[in-house]
Amino acid sequence: MSQLLRVQNFNVSSDGIGAGENQSFESPFGLDPGAMFAWGGATASWPTRTDPGGSRGLDDYFTRDFARNIGAEIMGRNKFGPQRGPWEDHEWLGWWGDEPPFHTPVFVMTHHKRPSFTLSDTTFHFVDGDPATILEQAREAAQGKDVRLGGGVTAIKQFLDADLVDTMHVAVSPITFGTGLRLWESPEELRDRFHLEIVPSPSGVAHHLFWRK
Amino acid sequence: MSQLLRVQNFNVSSDGIGAGENQSFESPFGLDPGAMFAWGGATASWPTRTDPGGSRGLDDYFTRDFARNIGAEIMGRNKFGPQRGPWEDHEWLGWWGDEPPFHTPVFVMTHHKRPSFTLSDTTFHFVDGDPATILEQAREAAQGKDVRLGGGVTAIKQFLDADLVDTMHVAVSPITFGTGLRLWESPEELRDRFHLEIVPSPSGVAHHLFWRK
Repeated sequence: MSQLLRVQNFNVSSDGIGAGENQSFESPFGLDPGAMFAWGGATASWPTRTDPGGSRGLDDYFTRDFARNIGAEIMGRNKFGPQRGPWEDHEWLGWWGDEPPFHTPVFVMTHHKRPSFTLSDTTFHFVDGDPATILEQAREAAQGKDVRLGGGVTAIKQFLDADLVDTMHVAVSPITFGTGLRLWESPEELRDRFHLEIVPSPSGVAHHLFWRK
Repeated sequence: MSQLLRVQNFNVSSDGIGAGENQSFESPFGLDPGAMFAWGGATASWPTRTDPGGSRGLDDYFTRDFARNIGAEIMGRNKFGPQRGPWEDHEWLGWWGDEPPFHTPVFVMTHHKRPSFTLSDTTFHFVDGDPATILEQAREAAQGKDVRLGGGVTAIKQFLDADLVDTMHVAVSPITFGTGLRLWESPEELRDRFHLEIVPSPSGVAHHLFWRK
């Protein structure tokens, strides 16, 4: 079995928006994503859940699959932090706190060099290059396991454009944002290259499952 | 998180039947289960798949969850083999071949003693006792991971009656058998103790997801 590149639990609004245009330190998403993520936070297996309990129905199958057989993650720079241009503050170590929920090497896409560092069992590497080159690095680090493409919208679109995505789970939440960074006009756009199953959940989310034809 | 007792990918007909009455060496299920299992065999992650390919839609989320965080399995004697009464042929090592799909310790419920043995990375133990006692043994062997309750119908009903099951995934296939070993008259019977989500799949199967209230 080859190493898949998988999008897992990526969340967009019903109008296809994954984040706002105006990301900032105070607003990592550039909009209030609470209602978008509510379905995931309610599950027993949500990666950042700290208290016991949570649902174990359909939605939990998706959140519990987040880490299964994943050996590395690739993320866009804006998922790491709000900075633009050269890194000026090496002391700030990203949005993800002392115990990042990745537990693998993470490859942050950026044109600006920065030394790698480790927080708990997650090591962040800062890499420049085209998607295929970065994927090659991540696959090597993943030691035979799959690679998660963590987002955001821009990073996923880059890998889709390069035809490097093998499977994709996108949760479409029953809210609209109107403006922002849009993953798609419609998921139908991807049917030429992917199988697509759309699975409605009792939580109101529609799970969109893509796999390569 | 405590160690859960999980039923995974257990399959019944639309009339709730998991196996026939007349199991034999030639007919492990006592009926032809091919149409019942077709949804699972079509997925990329079916445990006994040997060729590449397979679907990666909703059904695959269930088959790929089969082994996640499982440290031991409990099965009824009839899932191991068709023998009844004392073990007379110790050379026959069960239905599961040289590479059983369990990859953990397996506890076979039987009133008749038999020495443990190992095939590849699966060790079969033969245990007598009430469900709670057997679960305690399996939990210890699972070393902190969950325990899968592998079936068949009779074993699952014993553990349900003892109120020891934490989560249960039952795939209900769009066929009827009419007679056989019945898991339920209706899944509604379990709603007093369990949350229940019923998720229809494009394959025609209805995934029934139970978790303890």
